[in-house]
Amino acid sequence: MIKLLVVGTLAYDSIETPFGKVKDVLGGSALHFTNSASFFTDVGIVATVGKDFEMSEIAFLKERNVDMAGIEIDEGKTFRWEGKYGYDLNQAVTLKTELNVIESFEPKVPEDYRDADFVFLANIDPVLQAYVIDQVKFPKAVVLDTMNFWIENKYNELLDVIRRVDILVINEAELREISKEHSLVKGAKKIMASGPTCVVVKRGEYGVFMMNREEIFLAPAYPLEDVFDPTGAGDTFAGGFMGYIANMGDTLPATLKQAIIMGSVMASFNVEDFSINRIKTLDYQEIRDRYSAFKRCIQFGDIEFK
Amino acid sequence: MIKLLVVGTLAYDSIETPFGKVKDVLGGSALHFTNSASFFTDVGIVATVGKDFEMSEIAFLKERNVDMAGIEIDEGKTFRWEGKYGYDLNQAVTLKTELNVIESFEPKVPEDYRDADFVFLANIDPVLQAYVIDQVKFPKAVVLDTMNFWIENKYNELLDVIRRVDILVINEAELREISKEHSLVKGAKKIMASGPTCVVVKRGEYGVFMMNREEIFLAPAYPLEDVFDPTGAGDTFAGGFMGYIANMGDTLPATLKQAIIMGSVMASFNVEDFSINRIKTLDYQEIRDRYSAFKRCIQFGDIEFK
Repeated sequence: MIKLLVVGTLAYDSIETPFGKVKDVLGGSALHFTNSASFFTDVGIVATVGKDFEMSEIAFLKERNVDMAGIEIDEGKTFRWEGKYGYDLNQAVTLKTELNVIESFEPKVPEDYRDADFVFLANIDPVLQAYVIDQVKFPKAVVLDTMNFWIENKYNELLDVIRRVDILVINEAELREISKEHSLVKGAKKIMASGPTCVVVKRGEYGVFMMNREEIFLAPAYPLEDVFDPTGAGDTFAGGFMGYIANMGDTLPATLKQAIIMGSVMASFNVEDFSINRIKTLDYQEIRDRYSAFKRCIQFGDIEFK
Repeated sequence: MIKLLVVGTLAYDSIETPFGKVKDVLGGSALHFTNSASFFTDVGIVATVGKDFEMSEIAFLKERNVDMAGIEIDEGKTFRWEGKYGYDLNQAVTLKTELNVIESFEPKVPEDYRDADFVFLANIDPVLQAYVIDQVKFPKAVVLDTMNFWIENKYNELLDVIRRVDILVINEAELREISKEHSLVKGAKKIMASGPTCVVVKRGEYGVFMMNREEIFLAPAYPLEDVFDPTGAGDTFAGGFMGYIANMGDTLPATLKQAIIMGSVMASFNVEDFSINRIKTLDYQEIRDRYSAFKRCIQFGDIEFK
């Protein structure tokens, strides 16, 4: 029985960064999310791929108890994305997007996924996100991601589905665009007034801002000498965040904060290599060590002045 | 006897933000720095003003033990700066700069300031910064700020003076420009290889990055609903940072971290009103309360997953 359901994409990415170039490597929101979350909990994937997708390439996820029964293999080709980064790795330039099988994607949640306690709706059409919510039973928390395309083209549908979720995980520009507020505090308050109890704002190399009904929490990003490839960092963050929450089984304030740090830890590994490579070979000791090292970079003492 | 010497500017600023407009209000690096640092230690100012400067406007600093014997009153007008901010308050647009008496500024350190334990060289010509270092005796730490103008126009002189200081306090773009490294970690390492033992990088609304020979420390910015006027935030940060260090009397790693949080606390007050207004009327309880509130936004628990 899975604890965490993710609905998103599996893709082949072609990526160029100042450090190298790869063609048709594994990618997609659901894959980066699952690769990260599966260290902490049992994940089930709902996604669609084309006949060209090599399922054997993701077979390693079965060892981490990932359920792939929800992956539909359709006529046609797998979703493809081609992008490029300059030295400012915060911003990808999309060179080409081939939707392929994604174009007719209708997420069908398998019967035995419907009891999942936690649900992550990765960035897809908000109408489909709502359709997934219709199919799940009594989740403890539904978490939603989105992107500028949906904010600009399906704003009302997006607002409708946001009202039905518990936590929004988006980036800084998206928060400003959805809320029409420049201030993160004001923007998060506005969104929370419509339904969600928590807003998590991803700020890339600047870390994460989180606001819930009790408090604000601020986390920096783990300091790396170099970011090799940021593709999938946001979904890897979400995977660590939700995997940790599903492992703990609650969304108490203390859990949310630790989950944000865990998401940041997983994202920091993701950017050290192309595709899912770094996290594919990760072990628990490395995760624990980086969590502790990260904590040491953030802690400080009480005020002492005379 | 002063403990902390600051060399910088006193100015009249004219500022426009989305929230209002003011003309010829008190400003300048040495003033914002001192207004902040004087809560924690005895400060002496070296600066120059014109005959039009109303000394009575800064007389309130005497109650906080600020020594103003080093302020020279010259023939001519006081330095003036005119700037404007849009909703993205991270970037000021300079509308006008009138150097006036600053043009012939030669910082002379009064005899009884020369034993100061701590020295802050605000953003002035690196040749003058070096001239100040020549005049002080055995400071425990000399801290330097600069700006893009000097990096671009006096790069070698700047590198020469950086070699002679203990701590660099600069912003992110300046670190990249000086070190010619995109990565903050690499940039800070490169600078530390030339002499300084610590690099503090101001990142505006994203907080502060600090690196010394022992560790990296990351602090977010205190979360405010609105930033009213960011003018002087960097110098107010430096004032809280160095005031706290001078109060403690050392630059141990634990002190440096608390000092960065204190600098951030003081900067968060500064941006709540125009000019030095908010900090002018601040009290110790407000400072203590915000330090504690800030700490609550940053702390989180140890890893707990099963």
